Amino acid sequence: MVKLIVDLMGGDNGYKATVEAINKFVSEHDDCEIVGVGDPAVLSDLSEKVRVIPSSTIAPMKCTVMQAMRDKESSVYKAVSNVNVENADGVVSAGSTGAFLSLCTLILKKIEGISRPALTTPFPTKKDNYVILCDIGASVENNAHELCQFAKMGQAYASALYGIEKPTYQLISNGVEEGKGTPELIEAYSLMKADPQFKGYVEGRHVVDGESDVVVFPGFVGNVFLKTSEGIGKMCGEMIKEGFTKNIFTKIGYLFAKSGMKDFKKKMDYKRYGGAMLIGVNKIAVKSHGNADARTFYNAVNLAYNLAKNDLVGKVKESLK
Amino acid sequence: MVKLIVDLMGGDNGYKATVEAINKFVSEHDDCEIVGVGDPAVLSDLSEKVRVIPSSTIAPMKCTVMQAMRDKESSVYKAVSNVNVENADGVVSAGSTGAFLSLCTLILKKIEGISRPALTTPFPTKKDNYVILCDIGASVENNAHELCQFAKMGQAYASALYGIEKPTYQLISNGVEEGKGTPELIEAYSLMKADPQFKGYVEGRHVVDGESDVVVFPGFVGNVFLKTSEGIGKMCGEMIKEGFTKNIFTKIGYLFAKSGMKDFKKKMDYKRYGGAMLIGVNKIAVKSHGNADARTFYNAVNLAYNLAKNDLVGKVKESLK
Repeated sequence: MVKLIVDLMGGDNGYKATVEAINKFVSEHDDCEIVGVGDPAVLSDLSEKVRVIPSSTIAPMKCTVMQAMRDKESSVYKAVSNVNVENADGVVSAGSTGAFLSLCTLILKKIEGISRPALTTPFPTKKDNYVILCDIGASVENNAHELCQFAKMGQAYASALYGIEKPTYQLISNGVEEGKGTPELIEAYSLMKADPQFKGYVEGRHVVDGESDVVVFPGFVGNVFLKTSEGIGKMCGEMIKEGFTKNIFTKIGYLFAKSGMKDFKKKMDYKRYGGAMLIGVNKIAVKSHGNADARTFYNAVNLAYNLAKNDLVGKVKESLK
Repeated sequence: MVKLIVDLMGGDNGYKATVEAINKFVSEHDDCEIVGVGDPAVLSDLSEKVRVIPSSTIAPMKCTVMQAMRDKESSVYKAVSNVNVENADGVVSAGSTGAFLSLCTLILKKIEGISRPALTTPFPTKKDNYVILCDIGASVENNAHELCQFAKMGQAYASALYGIEKPTYQLISNGVEEGKGTPELIEAYSLMKADPQFKGYVEGRHVVDGESDVVVFPGFVGNVFLKTSEGIGKMCGEMIKEGFTKNIFTKIGYLFAKSGMKDFKKKMDYKRYGGAMLIGVNKIAVKSHGNADARTFYNAVNLAYNLAKNDLVGKVKESLK
């Protein structure tokens, strides 16, 4: 039985999106106990299967770490701090990323031996599979040792989520030849080189080729990579839409081409992935998108459930041995 | 009268692409003297307006700086080293980027006061204008002082290429709030803050919004940004193509939607920009794409011509005062 604590109040769409998602989730999963955190006064539609821990405030999306730590009545604080109290497997929130990540690190604590937890997400590739990006912004700068740990954590994630036995990984750089990159990347490359699972450097343009299961990034660079992809993907989508609405002929074209375009939209739709996982702490911690709708939040809870069931935390610990 | 030295041999498509491009260029421009560098034995189709400096070897695409410096008979070495000899305004090559950048820095020398030259390119935005990216990979890591100089060089470029009087600029980061980013970015932000042309941090996803004329990047990050955009844009194009070839109906749809899709393709077509400019050396130095066809190479030469005519080098010197 998996047990998850869920912040029902965080996120731009508030309890309406989360309650709909949780009701659907519990109706489909008999082997997962959900404990919700939120204001009982607004949660009348919540399934009776879900116990509620009351909270009275909501941490603002742009709150500082200090604010997040101080307001012990906020839904995100109560959600994270009850993981150990309730002996749960993990926590899910769509609230402030900064607050969630720091609370998880401070309260759930880093796995022994991990220098820095990493934020991780699956990313679509041309091959119809996903590549795990690690780190996409829990850190800013990372040394070679941390980059090697990111590789291990990403591998544990790929193994827990997709059942891949020996996940391969690449390291982002500005060229594929050894000696390229920042001093930290060059050092990480030399440490990874002997590992048969390491497939060398990868340039930004080839991450989507899906040549490895994991791509390792220093946090700042991973953040730029992910946001750039999002911006370009969105621009492409908008331009295609513009192209189709240009005149009566292009509009007719759309009617015919619709099914093909749906596949494109589906792939570029980041909401399908539900959220990002903070990996390297002692519990499952999934941060859903701030503007998550019910479907996205459902996917985030489902991600947490799958990672808990497949013992991601145990796999990370194992990889450090 | 502008005078440019052109490496006719570098690039994957060799002299065939460059000769076609140069013939078209000289037929259209009476106020630009082109001196070509190449093997006279293969240049029989070259316009008579173009004088040829003979070269006997071609630097390999993946050559090291040492190799590039040693082979003084290569077309790229002869092109760069003849800029001062010929008292030319600049040089264009589609050959090895590493060789070209280091030869330009070593032979043409940095403008007095510039710490690091920057590689710069226009990048398409949603607004149908271009944003100047600076640096996209001449450096790897950059300190705050260098980032401030990149801003000035990018502004000089925007002013020379688009005639913008007071170009605005943003600094890449992982969030827009002051205090975000690496220590170097935080310091650069504090140095830029008082400048009315500085519009703050920009995240990867918003570079394409075109909210400023220039975006400043540490070289490694700019390189990842550009290559990521290229990879995602290419994937989008391929997926759209797939969508249209799915079945008979989507194929009919394409016939109707064709004109709209052409606009999309045109925007995503990086070859239109011709090449990247190494800014911060004492002459115009344009590096065309390694796989440049005649049209791309023409655009690269045209870019060099426009930047020389509008005195980019003088504008950079002016901005340092």
